[in-house]
Amino acid sequence: MDRDTTFTLRPIGVIRSELTSRREAPKQGGEGAPDAWLEIEPWAEQALDRIAPGDALIVITWFHQADRSVMQVHPRGDQRNPLSGVFATRSPDRPNPVGLHPVILRSINGRRLRIGPIEAIDGTPVIDIKPELA
Amino acid sequence: MDRDTTFTLRPIGVIRSELTSRREAPKQGGEGAPDAWLEIEPWAEQALDRIAPGDALIVITWFHQADRSVMQVHPRGDQRNPLSGVFATRSPDRPNPVGLHPVILRSINGRRLRIGPIEAIDGTPVIDIKPELA
Repeated sequence: MDRDTTFTLRPIGVIRSELTSRREAPKQGGEGAPDAWLEIEPWAEQALDRIAPGDALIVITWFHQADRSVMQVHPRGDQRNPLSGVFATRSPDRPNPVGLHPVILRSINGRRLRIGPIEAIDGTPVIDIKPELA
Repeated sequence: MDRDTTFTLRPIGVIRSELTSRREAPKQGGEGAPDAWLEIEPWAEQALDRIAPGDALIVITWFHQADRSVMQVHPRGDQRNPLSGVFATRSPDRPNPVGLHPVILRSINGRRLRIGPIEAIDGTPVIDIKPELA
């Protein structure tokens, strides 16, 4: 494969949340994040078959507000933490700003999934859903 | 955000493995997969800072041979398993064929990381690396 090859992501859905800015969002879902809605695009609805309330899922998002040029950060935005490569951290600022969110599926109504807890902000594109890592 | 928005992934590296075809690859890393090399692109080397041997990482790949039109599969390719939406499975065939691989970092030599076990085949693009999910 050519080293300049790129790939195109097409969102399968979007997060609808009461969180509307990165500043108010917890760093991780387990740190007081709310539940949210995941609205699936009509063309992807078939791919939800056999997902059921209570399932532990990994929701994979695209941090559309990320700065993709950032290679090093102070973890958790705290200057007292030593500068670290972004691959050693969960920073949303990174070359390909993919987010991994372990959640529980609370309920499902057609193409609307109630999930949580999740720290992703309103409008965050969702690119994939998987069963939790074994 | 417009519902037709797409995003562009730029690989940060590539898997170099003795596995060369999907047919010979185990379904999951823990099912007898070998260790492999992850070669990081020069422009992303800074993002490796403070990663160390023994770290438990999630390597995120792009299954470049996937069929992105597939919405339902028989899990594990076994016709006896009932047809299921791909979001309920780990199938590499899915709309955005992102792969999650929990691995241990065995050693690191500049931009070459020895990781494993991992079922990704030789030439698989890598799009991100994160610390394992808490």
